[in-house]
Amino acid sequence: MNQPLQNDTFLRACLRQPTEHTPVWLMRQAGRYLPEYKATRVKAGNSFMGLATNVQYATEVTLQPLDRYPLDAAILFSDILTVPDAMGLGLSFGAGEGPKFAHPVRDEAAVAALQSPDLDKLRYVFDAVTSIRQALNGRVPLIGFSGSPWTLACYMVEGGGSDDYRLVKTMLYGRPDLMHRILAVNAQAVTAYLNAQVEAGAQALMVFDSWGGVLADGAFQRFSLDYTRRVVQGLKREKDGQRIPVIVFTKGGGPWLQDIADCGADVVGLDWTVNLERARAQVGGKVALQGNLDPNVLFAPPDAVAREARAVLDAFGRPQRADGAWDGHIFNLGHGISQYTPPEHVTALVEAVHAHSRALRRPM
Amino acid sequence: MNQPLQNDTFLRACLRQPTEHTPVWLMRQAGRYLPEYKATRVKAGNSFMGLATNVQYATEVTLQPLDRYPLDAAILFSDILTVPDAMGLGLSFGAGEGPKFAHPVRDEAAVAALQSPDLDKLRYVFDAVTSIRQALNGRVPLIGFSGSPWTLACYMVEGGGSDDYRLVKTMLYGRPDLMHRILAVNAQAVTAYLNAQVEAGAQALMVFDSWGGVLADGAFQRFSLDYTRRVVQGLKREKDGQRIPVIVFTKGGGPWLQDIADCGADVVGLDWTVNLERARAQVGGKVALQGNLDPNVLFAPPDAVAREARAVLDAFGRPQRADGAWDGHIFNLGHGISQYTPPEHVTALVEAVHAHSRALRRPM
Repeated sequence: MNQPLQNDTFLRACLRQPTEHTPVWLMRQAGRYLPEYKATRVKAGNSFMGLATNVQYATEVTLQPLDRYPLDAAILFSDILTVPDAMGLGLSFGAGEGPKFAHPVRDEAAVAALQSPDLDKLRYVFDAVTSIRQALNGRVPLIGFSGSPWTLACYMVEGGGSDDYRLVKTMLYGRPDLMHRILAVNAQAVTAYLNAQVEAGAQALMVFDSWGGVLADGAFQRFSLDYTRRVVQGLKREKDGQRIPVIVFTKGGGPWLQDIADCGADVVGLDWTVNLERARAQVGGKVALQGNLDPNVLFAPPDAVAREARAVLDAFGRPQRADGAWDGHIFNLGHGISQYTPPEHVTALVEAVHAHSRALRRPM
Repeated sequence: MNQPLQNDTFLRACLRQPTEHTPVWLMRQAGRYLPEYKATRVKAGNSFMGLATNVQYATEVTLQPLDRYPLDAAILFSDILTVPDAMGLGLSFGAGEGPKFAHPVRDEAAVAALQSPDLDKLRYVFDAVTSIRQALNGRVPLIGFSGSPWTLACYMVEGGGSDDYRLVKTMLYGRPDLMHRILAVNAQAVTAYLNAQVEAGAQALMVFDSWGGVLADGAFQRFSLDYTRRVVQGLKREKDGQRIPVIVFTKGGGPWLQDIADCGADVVGLDWTVNLERARAQVGGKVALQGNLDPNVLFAPPDAVAREARAVLDAFGRPQRADGAWDGHIFNLGHGISQYTPPEHVTALVEAVHAHSRALRRPM
């Protein structure tokens, strides 16, 4: 039996409802910058997927940052490539390297063979969601997530990370029919995967379009956003009478903010190149905004971290508008936290966000 | 004695004057995708700097793409890191690796010791400019170039390329005083370097802010654009009665287009994420625009290359406005051409740009 939420600030901000402070969580908050994370990872055979596929370890690392910092949300510990792995592409992580697929999707036959995976192969993810939700015991909401259809396709075609996206863009421009087929399968799979996370206990969902920003204007809309929209429209948006907010984050998506804000999501994630004041003026009446501190700020001394965090809050401004309605802001980084981040700088960040956002709400 | 220009289409487009076709040149057009370039490089001891520091080889490779394709401009063959090398930082290129500095600038003492270099150490660049100008014999204009103060600073602090810009951003946020001192020295050096290229024969100048786009909104304006503006304002803009156009290109600079268009440049370079129609509506009456095909398009078959090139031209639209005045468009890629590009695809690109841009100019 799930406990009622003790802190629903994050959910309220997503839905553009009044909040006492600006909620904050950090992409990749359960990660290698935390010594306790590294310790659990050693127990899991020093393997990322060893952590992600073990319900107990995944639960443990998801909760670690919450024990250290008063964060306002938890996010499932998992990888964005679980779905293509379940499609049979053979995911592995070499030592010190990024992800690799043993069977990349590069020709007509491989594309034709592609199918939305049996969700039973992703059971370990849904079990982790349920376990984390129970362990949270109502402290804060739990966010489930997936990579976007385009971002998954990048990895599936390239077979891993890429500097130039040569293979996937060669297919996109040379054989757009194959690319659209991959994206259609991915959209179907991601939709089912996210809905199953909601069934398992996720209270909000986030779609990571980590590589949308490498696309050209026009191509982004046709090959990334159209399929993200398809996912968002297929999502279960309510569970047990609670609205399930959906966040869409496109790294490098600033040029297409207005298009992204129309995709049906409740929240749009922004990277640090975006001017938050202008973004709010453009789309803040329609969607909440999440972001957008440069994660590199966290390498500076704590007083500089606090100063830059206040600047982000000031750029968004008082969430309550002059007409009394509220716009939503969820504080986050504009990208995942670096493994080299000093943990005590995160303490300074979270304190500054909570203190300054409370100050911003006081009557002027 | 320099010959009069036979093809000044590029210069006219930079200055928003009437043109019969849209001029086209390609960033890194003299490069590894050309077999004749690789042959010259072998003669130069298979070394990039061996090519760049030898006047004869630098001239040879600069002209190679012009002999293959009817491009409308030549660009000096050199590296953006010649200036910090002349400052004594010890530039080297390892086999198959990017640039490295033996003496990166990371602490107060190194920053204090930094000085604008003796231009005599860059004599090989100016000699190459003069030699290339003579060899061109008036075929097309010659573009000189430099890295921007910020982009140079990135390499100087990181000591080479970087995935996360951790060191340079740590300094930026933690010791902004040191960063501003580096940038001031760089701005002075880049200004003198570019003016000397004009003296040597360069007929247009380009500032590459290749890494401006990694900065946060606000930081970009203070740490990159302010110093680029300082450079632009210090440049000699006329020689022998000819205006010397200045192009500023910030990779990832789309979010700051309006700010960049106000820096004093004649032309703003755009990467492929920018919507060219919107960009023209925003700033086309003030500056010419250069760009913005995704270089990965060149991996697709020639008919797809031609189609995408036409789409870029159509996005900009007819250069002559309804009121009779002209806006300027220079066709280019949104980043340097890849070494894996099939040379015959470039033929298709240049043909498509010339043919379709002539068609666009016909009375409707």
